Amino acid sequence: MIITVAIDCMGGDHGPRVTVPAALDFVRRHGDVRVVLVGREEEIRPFLGGADAARVSLRHATEVVAMDEPPALALRNKKNSSMRVALNLVKEKGADACVSAGNTGALMAISRFVLKMLPGIDRPAICAILPTTRGHTHVLDLGANVDCAPEHLLQFGIMGASLVSAIEHKERPTVGILNIGEEEIKGNDVVKRAAELLKESGLNFVGNVEGDGLYKGDAEVVVCDGFVGNVALKASEGLAQMLAGFLRQEFNRNLLTKLIALIAMPVLNNFKRHVDHRRYNGASLLGLKGIVLKSHGSADAFAFANALERAAEAVRSGVLARISERVAQRQPLQEAI
Amino acid sequence: MIITVAIDCMGGDHGPRVTVPAALDFVRRHGDVRVVLVGREEEIRPFLGGADAARVSLRHATEVVAMDEPPALALRNKKNSSMRVALNLVKEKGADACVSAGNTGALMAISRFVLKMLPGIDRPAICAILPTTRGHTHVLDLGANVDCAPEHLLQFGIMGASLVSAIEHKERPTVGILNIGEEEIKGNDVVKRAAELLKESGLNFVGNVEGDGLYKGDAEVVVCDGFVGNVALKASEGLAQMLAGFLRQEFNRNLLTKLIALIAMPVLNNFKRHVDHRRYNGASLLGLKGIVLKSHGSADAFAFANALERAAEAVRSGVLARISERVAQRQPLQEAI
Repeated sequence: MIITVAIDCMGGDHGPRVTVPAALDFVRRHGDVRVVLVGREEEIRPFLGGADAARVSLRHATEVVAMDEPPALALRNKKNSSMRVALNLVKEKGADACVSAGNTGALMAISRFVLKMLPGIDRPAICAILPTTRGHTHVLDLGANVDCAPEHLLQFGIMGASLVSAIEHKERPTVGILNIGEEEIKGNDVVKRAAELLKESGLNFVGNVEGDGLYKGDAEVVVCDGFVGNVALKASEGLAQMLAGFLRQEFNRNLLTKLIALIAMPVLNNFKRHVDHRRYNGASLLGLKGIVLKSHGSADAFAFANALERAAEAVRSGVLARISERVAQRQPLQEAI
Repeated sequence: MIITVAIDCMGGDHGPRVTVPAALDFVRRHGDVRVVLVGREEEIRPFLGGADAARVSLRHATEVVAMDEPPALALRNKKNSSMRVALNLVKEKGADACVSAGNTGALMAISRFVLKMLPGIDRPAICAILPTTRGHTHVLDLGANVDCAPEHLLQFGIMGASLVSAIEHKERPTVGILNIGEEEIKGNDVVKRAAELLKESGLNFVGNVEGDGLYKGDAEVVVCDGFVGNVALKASEGLAQMLAGFLRQEFNRNLLTKLIALIAMPVLNNFKRHVDHRRYNGASLLGLKGIVLKSHGSADAFAFANALERAAEAVRSGVLARISERVAQRQPLQEAI
């Protein structure tokens, strides 16, 4: 099986300068992948070099969705944006997956419009991987849905479990719900009701996961509404950046500390590799009739290539079929209630 | 002015073993403070040593609120708990403030019952200090209120600004609202409406703060509902612990890395001091007719002493009067709307 990934080369903070080298590297590493580079030909070609023409093709698209463009406008007005053309390729089976580092809201809106939702799923969700002390966890939603009903959180659980089950070959990954620990007020009504639905769902539901439990690996899949998920993810990013900055500052304080930094470099580099957020780049837009991966806008070539790896993995492992299957299994249950 | 702090010595994971030495240290450092140690005399006395009897007194209380006890039960059944007796002292003007490392939900419920709310404030909020790249910020609510109306978030803004204004002698501290950045869906309806109220409030409102903005110091006061605040805070704790663990792991890998750790120790210790969460221990329960500080349950003597410092500061700077004043100023405005 040859896997074809359509790449929105214009998205992200760096555009083709990052996306094209990452794509070429991705093709070099895997014999069974093809890429379609979508975007402005004149901006992409300079980075192409002597790429394998059989496996790297270019699809010209004149427009670019700006990072701060309102999604509704991008959807309505930019029918020939690199993002839209890449998603069209997936719809028309010219590609198996689409990867973009562009405007998240626009990617979500255009994906939904072009690809449509899977039957039985009401809303798409953004699912990212976070490192934990024990390995990693999948968290969703991270910003697509601000107000969620309990039923939506249940669907997130089913989609997340299907993803982990397909990719990591685990029959019944553990699923938790993000909540707070105060006894009297444990969670709001939506979370309480969602927990009941999850308990009855046949998923391997392990109950509440508190904020710190995310990083302790309390569950392999953690569901939450997009508001709290987005805040938790970004707060984590902010904290990690601040801590890294402070550490750098201490090692840069004077000549002696700089010398110590030099000596400690191998250890510090191992640490950096261990916690490198670029390794976790590539969030899945789940619930669509197609595989779409969102890369961080600031991704460099290493990070973007990881998002491409995730896309290929999702195709290879049959994530879409797995989600559809699990949703279908659920139908009668849901009707019975 | 002599400041008297009533201390719930039985609360927290460690009880008198931590709270009493911290109290004695606090008294030693300040000539103008007194402490009333509340709890089981037989458990407190062994840690008293030759304490200055004029400034350290003991108030026997037979019961203890367990860390996992339902707040409603603690409120109803434990009229003679160390927590309740300490709060009664504040109510009866036997003390200027109460500090506890005990059960947060119980502390909140009993404080509210014993001390009552300030006029014009509907709900108490937990306000903690977080470090930022530029200094620190005050965030509320962190778990007292799961579902908030826009009006509550506005009140949190007024209380937080009053606290910072009193303690840090800033006339108009900046106030932001925790939100997410996706263009299409920026925030839910409650947050949007709260932002409008904050804009019209006369506070120095700077708009939305995203998760990472918390640690960038985007605002001196950040308001949010207790669910998202609690998750963000605990996720941060979890991430910091995980990163510290990974760093330790890398330095412990083998004899060479252990030697490097030894050499890098002074730098690593400076870093540790810089980001030591114990320095930020002591969250204010705002909105009550009395000063109540909540220490982290796992606090050691250094951390607990910091919570005591915060309590004394709040008394000294007249936080309660400042909040009342600002709420009163607001009344006509609110009625005008």
